[in-house]
Amino acid sequence: MTPWEVKGNVDYDRLIKEFGVSKIDDALLKRIKKHTGELHHFLRRGIFFAHRDLSFILDEYEKGNKFYLYTGRAPSGDVHIGHLVPWMFTKWLQDKFDVELYFQFPDEEKFLFKPELTWEEAQKALHENMLDVIAVGFNPKKTHFLIDTKHANLMYPEAIKVAKKITFSTVKAAFGLDNENNIGSIFYTAMQAVPAFIGSVIHKKKVPCLIPHAIDQDPHFRVSRDIIPKLGYDKPASIQCRFLPGLTGIQDNGKMSSSLENTSIFVKDDAATIKKKVNKYAFSGGRDTVEEHRLKGGNPEIDVAYQWLVFFEEDDKKLAKIYSDYTSGKLLSGELKAILIKKLTAFLTEHQKRRKNAEKFLDKFIL
Amino acid sequence: MTPWEVKGNVDYDRLIKEFGVSKIDDALLKRIKKHTGELHHFLRRGIFFAHRDLSFILDEYEKGNKFYLYTGRAPSGDVHIGHLVPWMFTKWLQDKFDVELYFQFPDEEKFLFKPELTWEEAQKALHENMLDVIAVGFNPKKTHFLIDTKHANLMYPEAIKVAKKITFSTVKAAFGLDNENNIGSIFYTAMQAVPAFIGSVIHKKKVPCLIPHAIDQDPHFRVSRDIIPKLGYDKPASIQCRFLPGLTGIQDNGKMSSSLENTSIFVKDDAATIKKKVNKYAFSGGRDTVEEHRLKGGNPEIDVAYQWLVFFEEDDKKLAKIYSDYTSGKLLSGELKAILIKKLTAFLTEHQKRRKNAEKFLDKFIL
Repeated sequence: MTPWEVKGNVDYDRLIKEFGVSKIDDALLKRIKKHTGELHHFLRRGIFFAHRDLSFILDEYEKGNKFYLYTGRAPSGDVHIGHLVPWMFTKWLQDKFDVELYFQFPDEEKFLFKPELTWEEAQKALHENMLDVIAVGFNPKKTHFLIDTKHANLMYPEAIKVAKKITFSTVKAAFGLDNENNIGSIFYTAMQAVPAFIGSVIHKKKVPCLIPHAIDQDPHFRVSRDIIPKLGYDKPASIQCRFLPGLTGIQDNGKMSSSLENTSIFVKDDAATIKKKVNKYAFSGGRDTVEEHRLKGGNPEIDVAYQWLVFFEEDDKKLAKIYSDYTSGKLLSGELKAILIKKLTAFLTEHQKRRKNAEKFLDKFIL
Repeated sequence: MTPWEVKGNVDYDRLIKEFGVSKIDDALLKRIKKHTGELHHFLRRGIFFAHRDLSFILDEYEKGNKFYLYTGRAPSGDVHIGHLVPWMFTKWLQDKFDVELYFQFPDEEKFLFKPELTWEEAQKALHENMLDVIAVGFNPKKTHFLIDTKHANLMYPEAIKVAKKITFSTVKAAFGLDNENNIGSIFYTAMQAVPAFIGSVIHKKKVPCLIPHAIDQDPHFRVSRDIIPKLGYDKPASIQCRFLPGLTGIQDNGKMSSSLENTSIFVKDDAATIKKKVNKYAFSGGRDTVEEHRLKGGNPEIDVAYQWLVFFEEDDKKLAKIYSDYTSGKLLSGELKAILIKKLTAFLTEHQKRRKNAEKFLDKFIL
């Protein structure tokens, strides 16, 4: 156990085996560092922990053939702090490697998969979600929003080439669809595959694609990795992260969910809400009494406030100090929560400030 | 039996019952004539013989709410003379009622359904087919070509609203698709439904839609007629025609097929080819010997040359004369064929002349 370790009820080592992805090892970290100068704390701490074909991306980069980044957000409801994790890392990759990013907003996905969601609601969510993505701080000159229904002229002709090579049997097996699913949801995965080679379509030459994403999205890209080489492009590479644990605890579920109000901090939450939620819901690794805590120390392994600091406290020294103070019993659970509350409040206040300003940059980002 | 009757091995009365369409009766013909002044010979001769909701279209028209027309062509291979039948009639409707026409080119359909067809071939066919449609003589000011992959920005957002309401079970039952069909072909029917309400989308009010088409396309529109009212638009109406029989005979199949070289006259065929094909392949209703023919007369009911003249000889008096001369034995089978050859050659020479000129109008037609 180290200060950097992120726990959860998800067995990530098993996922690596099951999905057939590769662990990011020290040699690969070193190789990344050669180009970036420093390593993002998500890399230092194993939050981005797995990949496919990252060496290929670096091989090409070292030959002078820059990759582009692809990530996305299926518009719906509110963005929570867990969504920001891959986006923040994507921004870092964009800045360090000075590369283009295609950010997909598949504004039909939730509309097709959620029976009750109306088109108007999906379009409203699209608008709100775009503002949150802009607030992350992407480079407007190198970031292109791809909106499925607004860029259908570009995407649909490519999606049908993908679709021609995927049978209903395949999507049934990969995504658990059945005969009662609507035909839009059956087709959808073809649209999600397009940004993984759109850079090559637009630039009319093979441009490698790197997809930063949470590990649970891997099945989508596994299907498209099979298809894309048949269209004459390279398989997209990926770099994959763990989930930010839900507030109510690591034992509940491994992933934050925006449908459970109590397990999430939303990016629009104000200081009072953050304070209330962390104090009330964040699962504690502290002991039952102050005396016992002072004696035995807290357990950071199951403490959500601590685990969140692994994601949001960038400074290794500060985090190590918190770790030792907490395990020694010097830092109480409430004090630890107060550190997180301060961190999150500062972080989200900045986000909200940038978000307020985002509307006027929207046109610059839309392809 | 009258000179106007079109035969075939297709039992159209049974189709009317089976599909649940309505026969165009004399009252309806009268009502059309009130607006058009004359009746197209396709109506006079029962070639356009069935409809859905045509009375609704006329009700609205009489109230001052003009309908628009929707027909289409799935690009692939060569256009044959049978394809021209609904297009010629659509042009007549456009001219007589002075209405807009959305002409769909679903350039992904054949690509998705024919394993061997490449994207480049489909795009070439699209270009060639558009020239043939222009050559029919549509009004460029009121005719809008809708190309699925080029107008996807307009069509895909509408198609997903249709798609959300159609399950795989439904397309399985309606079109005989199965688990091994590709996911693009499964989605496709949603794209074909869009032009049936696109006039209302574009004009931001309910505009009735009338679809002239060959009767075999009815299943597509039956599915979309169920869905479209759920999106807040009126069911599209339709007016449906019989097939131009194949050259090799009414007993072979009811429909001309472009995959059978011998049963088709292609619009690009030259005078020599037309002459050769008609003389060699057109199934004859003449007698075995000249003597027998003179005595008993020919049988126009099974004679393809005669049946084609029902489609292509507009003049009722001329056709009646041919009929009586042929049944009386005055006109020999070869002479009848010569009449058809002359008619087709003149008709296609004109078409080819207009087609040569069509390229420069292309931009005017594309929406």
